[in-house]
Amino acid sequence: MSAESDPAVTARRRADEMYAQDTTCRDLGIAIDEVAEGYAVARMQITETMANGNGIAHGGYLFLLADTTFSYACTIRGTTLAQSAHIVFLRPASVGDELIAEAAERSRFGRIGVYDVSVRRADGTMIAEFRGQSQSVPDNFFRAHATRLS
Amino acid sequence: MSAESDPAVTARRRADEMYAQDTTCRDLGIAIDEVAEGYAVARMQITETMANGNGIAHGGYLFLLADTTFSYACTIRGTTLAQSAHIVFLRPASVGDELIAEAAERSRFGRIGVYDVSVRRADGTMIAEFRGQSQSVPDNFFRAHATRLS
Amino acid sequence: MSAESDPAVTARRRADEMYAQDTTCRDLGIAIDEVAEGYAVARMQITETMANGNGIAHGGYLFLLADTTFSYACTIRGTTLAQSAHIVFLRPASVGDELIAEAAERSRFGRIGVYDVSVRRADGTMIAEFRGQSQSVPDNFFRAHATRLS
Amino acid sequence: MSAESDPAVTARRRADEMYAQDTTCRDLGIAIDEVAEGYAVARMQITETMANGNGIAHGGYLFLLADTTFSYACTIRGTTLAQSAHIVFLRPASVGDELIAEAAERSRFGRIGVYDVSVRRADGTMIAEFRGQSQSVPDNFFRAHATRLS
Repeated sequence: MSAESDPAVTARRRADEMYAQDTTCRDLGIAIDEVAEGYAVARMQITETMANGNGIAHGGYLFLLADTTFSYACTIRGTTLAQSAHIVFLRPASVGDELIAEAAERSRFGRIGVYDVSVRRADGTMIAEFRGQSQSVPDNFFRAHATRLS
Repeated sequence: MSAESDPAVTARRRADEMYAQDTTCRDLGIAIDEVAEGYAVARMQITETMANGNGIAHGGYLFLLADTTFSYACTIRGTTLAQSAHIVFLRPASVGDELIAEAAERSRFGRIGVYDVSVRRADGTMIAEFRGQSQSVPDNFFRAHATRLS
Repeated sequence: MSAESDPAVTARRRADEMYAQDTTCRDLGIAIDEVAEGYAVARMQITETMANGNGIAHGGYLFLLADTTFSYACTIRGTTLAQSAHIVFLRPASVGDELIAEAAERSRFGRIGVYDVSVRRADGTMIAEFRGQSQSVPDNFFRAHATRLS
Repeated sequence: MSAESDPAVTARRRADEMYAQDTTCRDLGIAIDEVAEGYAVARMQITETMANGNGIAHGGYLFLLADTTFSYACTIRGTTLAQSAHIVFLRPASVGDELIAEAAERSRFGRIGVYDVSVRRADGTMIAEFRGQSQSVPDNFFRAHATRLS
């Protein structure tokens, strides 16, 4: 198999292109550790500005990390968007925790994909379970939306 | 009814106390416009650092805004946590969009509550529909977690 | 407005056509009490054969009633299918309970719709909250699948 | 390890006790093929009375099969109930299809468990992906509800 047709190589290349545009990831210090066909691992540290009014990590940032990892796991499938997602919060995370999210494609049919993402602390403790539903869209879909003047 | 026993006054007071600790809200410029019994409205502008690798608003920030509004709508119910949540992304949002989220309690039984949150652009265009499931927990629940050294 | 262009009349007519084919509804004694534009009410009694291994109403039948009501609320939107759904079980239902489900369209964009269904006992007690995501499909979609020899 | 302390043996015994009371499973011809610790496989054939108004298998019965398999996978955890569930319908199923559902525990913390159930046709074609959230309850929970006179 040539590098051009190797899904893992293609996935990595597309992830690098996406990351170069991804201001959220760079702003929050999210690192994409691994990308393969229908698979990705990402990592983020909970900082002081990610605490909610109860003093623990804001659930929105746990979701954001899972959703990010999901989107990198999808890159091999062409242009996709997250259509819906579900998350179960099992344990709170704290400021200072390093979180690792692992996303894997579970099923795919037609334009729909189902992906599971587990968010754990670096010591392996489970924090949250995410399931996302992706939808394939035309390649120019995001360009049209990104340039909209609101 | 005295001010002390008025649910809307209690909800507002607890929301203010929570907001004073809420580094995420202040960091992202989220404003809590309204809080009442089982109800809240919050507002956030999509900034450059909230764009994802496709150049549109990161779905994680849409979720974060909805989840925040959900948590402020719950304050009247005592100490609660978000146990799980589901979101449908209907339309992409763009950098510069001002988003308004409106959360309302739909059902409650025992320690479980169900809340719906709609996220719209300031012009009323629907962006995302969120449903969250809350769980009541002991009052010292978050203190215990917030002080954990990881 | 003539009867032909009245959405409520169209919804009722389509619901009647669908019900005539709906062996599940007739087998389980589900009645469609109301149908309007993006709205439906259905009713079902929990019988002995709907009990699970714990002696209460099987959650599958609560979901089935909600999902049915959802599909009748969608008829005005042409041919649609349920793409995904989420349900929260608030209270158990018992053999003998009469359950009433009320479905209402919450949002719609492009081919996607979001519908909420509340399942209550006849006395108004809340049993379950369902949220379904519909997808519009070509008119011949189901004919193709219904005639497949497996 | 003695048979008494073997989780697989305990799971099988509890499943048999539950099945003996499970009028839904017997009425619909659902067979529990395998039960182990946090794991179960069940099987059901789509009959004429399981068709919806579009002539395909009613989504409610797909959910019911998944939810049943989920509940048998939980037996080893003591008395549990399904608190919420999410399902993605990937392909329609047809009258005559034999469906096989496989449930596996994904995470557990405190009283909450997360279980995934895949529903496939007997030829392996994926039909639906279900995720359920279980909650442990006191042992007499269902007895109290099952005997309620409504």
